[in-house]
Amino acid sequence: MRERKILLSEKDIPRRWYNAMADLPNPPAPPLHPGTKQPIGPDDLAPLFPMPLIEQEVSAQRWIDIPEEVLDVLSLWRPTPLYRAYNLEKALGTPAKIFYKYEGTSPSGSHKTNTSVAQVYYNKITGTKRIATETGAGQWGSALSFACNHFGLDCTIYMVKVSYDQKPYRRIMMETWGGKVFASPSRETNAGRQALTQDPNNSGSLGLAISEAVEDAATHGDTKYSLGSVLNHVLLHQTIIGQETKKQLEMVGEKADVLIGSCGGGSNLGGLILPFLPDKLGGQKIRMVAVEPAACPTLTRGTFAYDFGDTAGLTPLVQMYTLGSSFMPAGIHAGGLRYHGDSPLISRMAKDKLLEAVAYRQVEVFDAAALFARTEGIIPAPESAHAVKGAIDEAKRCAAEKKKETIVFNLSGHGHFDLAAYEAYLGKKLVDYALPEDVLAKSISAIPKV
Amino acid sequence: MRERKILLSEKDIPRRWYNAMADLPNPPAPPLHPGTKQPIGPDDLAPLFPMPLIEQEVSAQRWIDIPEEVLDVLSLWRPTPLYRAYNLEKALGTPAKIFYKYEGTSPSGSHKTNTSVAQVYYNKITGTKRIATETGAGQWGSALSFACNHFGLDCTIYMVKVSYDQKPYRRIMMETWGGKVFASPSRETNAGRQALTQDPNNSGSLGLAISEAVEDAATHGDTKYSLGSVLNHVLLHQTIIGQETKKQLEMVGEKADVLIGSCGGGSNLGGLILPFLPDKLGGQKIRMVAVEPAACPTLTRGTFAYDFGDTAGLTPLVQMYTLGSSFMPAGIHAGGLRYHGDSPLISRMAKDKLLEAVAYRQVEVFDAAALFARTEGIIPAPESAHAVKGAIDEAKRCAAEKKKETIVFNLSGHGHFDLAAYEAYLGKKLVDYALPEDVLAKSISAIPKV
Repeated sequence: MRERKILLSEKDIPRRWYNAMADLPNPPAPPLHPGTKQPIGPDDLAPLFPMPLIEQEVSAQRWIDIPEEVLDVLSLWRPTPLYRAYNLEKALGTPAKIFYKYEGTSPSGSHKTNTSVAQVYYNKITGTKRIATETGAGQWGSALSFACNHFGLDCTIYMVKVSYDQKPYRRIMMETWGGKVFASPSRETNAGRQALTQDPNNSGSLGLAISEAVEDAATHGDTKYSLGSVLNHVLLHQTIIGQETKKQLEMVGEKADVLIGSCGGGSNLGGLILPFLPDKLGGQKIRMVAVEPAACPTLTRGTFAYDFGDTAGLTPLVQMYTLGSSFMPAGIHAGGLRYHGDSPLISRMAKDKLLEAVAYRQVEVFDAAALFARTEGIIPAPESAHAVKGAIDEAKRCAAEKKKETIVFNLSGHGHFDLAAYEAYLGKKLVDYALPEDVLAKSISAIPKV
Repeated sequence: MRERKILLSEKDIPRRWYNAMADLPNPPAPPLHPGTKQPIGPDDLAPLFPMPLIEQEVSAQRWIDIPEEVLDVLSLWRPTPLYRAYNLEKALGTPAKIFYKYEGTSPSGSHKTNTSVAQVYYNKITGTKRIATETGAGQWGSALSFACNHFGLDCTIYMVKVSYDQKPYRRIMMETWGGKVFASPSRETNAGRQALTQDPNNSGSLGLAISEAVEDAATHGDTKYSLGSVLNHVLLHQTIIGQETKKQLEMVGEKADVLIGSCGGGSNLGGLILPFLPDKLGGQKIRMVAVEPAACPTLTRGTFAYDFGDTAGLTPLVQMYTLGSSFMPAGIHAGGLRYHGDSPLISRMAKDKLLEAVAYRQVEVFDAAALFARTEGIIPAPESAHAVKGAIDEAKRCAAEKKKETIVFNLSGHGHFDLAAYEAYLGKKLVDYALPEDVLAKSISAIPKV
């Protein structure tokens, strides 16, 4: 019987994070202060983040040791399996080999716990008592709540109201781990109260929820803020994904020709591909592909520029591919990919053509997800389904070109809390949205000149 | 770093099912025809089940080979991990070692796929085109839909209406794998139409859904019926759980002192404990514990007698512990444990004191589930949480008695589709029901005299 799963034991969990900043030919430009437009220093971030994370954010050190206390928690579910997708290959009639790294085995069901555990640990050892964050679809809030529970910190989560109402199971999951969840806009912050005064029926947005969480952290001395993607230290923590994948491919004598990840803020993609960067820079032929929604096509149709990370313009300006911080993406089910910008690190790689990007519409993404569920068994999260679609199209190309390539993608999470999206798909009620040119032009034109 | 997970590779998946009928000192008495009250033969079951499964149902052969085609599908998620629950042990301050076998890694999230794959395979090779079944909470319907999709059979599921309305995600999961789901009572069968004529607002019951599925199978030549627990062949298919567990314990030099499983129809419990039966009969000191809800305490308060498997009295009479086939259990969240009877095999073991049983109320079970989620990360299904509670109480006993016993329990599934139950628990809205004596006496008195 052929083996489908390539398993590592706990002693194979990577002991160090890989920091791509040490190897990128052009490192990302420094973030700028939103007021002065001058490069910010560590002290500017100190009200929001503990110093060890700020140090990681600006570090150029290639390898950073993972604390034993973090490894101990990660070992609850790591290493994660790498699967050979034999059934999917057969259904596609492709000569390509398809592998997928499955991050849905974590307690909260996605890769997000890889960084939440590390972030909470560094907060814990520097005296933080409480962490505030925002969550859209709920994957990040779940992951942070899980980690805070483990280390005994309080956790406050501002959950975009429309998701709070539509995804009660995600909220209950956070509450089961002890998290306190508020529908955003809430009455807990000035930002929230102001929004509710203007419109008592405000259904919230990620940008507004960020404002609430940041205000909460900035106005409480024992509280810090936490972000689940985009930043360098978040991608750093995710590099255990790619390190494990490299080792697993070696175990079966394979080398990746194509690496694929879905891309919103960029952390699951970065986690998979960054550890392969030295190989690529060293001359190994290896393509890296970001898959994004056509409704929010940051890398494929955005502009490379300094822009705000949030809607209100309170965060530092970062150089990235952006659709403009005023951009409001359509309500696709892949809530985790609805971000106007992208990780500066991933953006820089795209700018330097180290990375390709492709965008798909919602219906073709769910076609891919359903095929995957019917062949491999696992029902993917809508976000992760973008990577599935990317892998399927690469496998079809291989079939057309009669090429036996090795395709590896990151299945970043399961879709157990997203079945309403599958119901809409099965009932042919999914809106198949692509971003209109005039809407894009308008939000791009609002990007500040630096 | 200590290892939490004991992992097997795919070549370690058991190649044979273990049939406890070969070793039980007193095998279960034969089922009786509901009309004649005489022992039934294979031909009586032929309208409902394919002959290979009927042969397994009555077989006394100790080992039965697992077909390669079944092993191939099982390898999508098997072998499943055995975990050492270090965090839970620490929280309890127990000298006991707690291990749990985790069956929630299957596509449908529980152990049920172990038998659904085998059952659909034997239906496939004997020409069945469609399988009809019932489902309560939805775990069994999901598992059967997954397996039917894999082997290309149609799948019709009668889902108890109250669950159909309350658990749309379970229904959508079945539909994603191609299953056709009807709220029961439905207009598809005479049984359903009759119930709806009497009461258009009938919210259904498992007994009625069974009647619908059985009628559907019996009245369509290309269609068979399938059951997810209780029967000998179902427990047989689940014995891969215990076989893997034995091997995993050997890998870390452990021997189980106590084996624990939640018990409704008895299949996840049987799957874990039956492969240890020869050791126990051979003199090894090993306790086997069934954990059931106080609202439906079949083994702890039922009567050992011949009784019907369904409410309507259409199925054969089987000798088992029963609360009476007219018994209607309270609406606890562990829907999979709401069955008036029990597997004849498990019942016989309880009767012969090879097995102990203990019953818990709903709130203490969720206390255990929440503690488990907060220490080990995984949110258990309400059914599986009964085994968690059983293991915690054994570990507390070990602490009181200063005993370093090895406790092993079956965590049969995750609770991702049961978070409404956790919300009720967190909001202190769970009804803490135990079966009143007079209700029990009434339903026991209705058991037919044979």
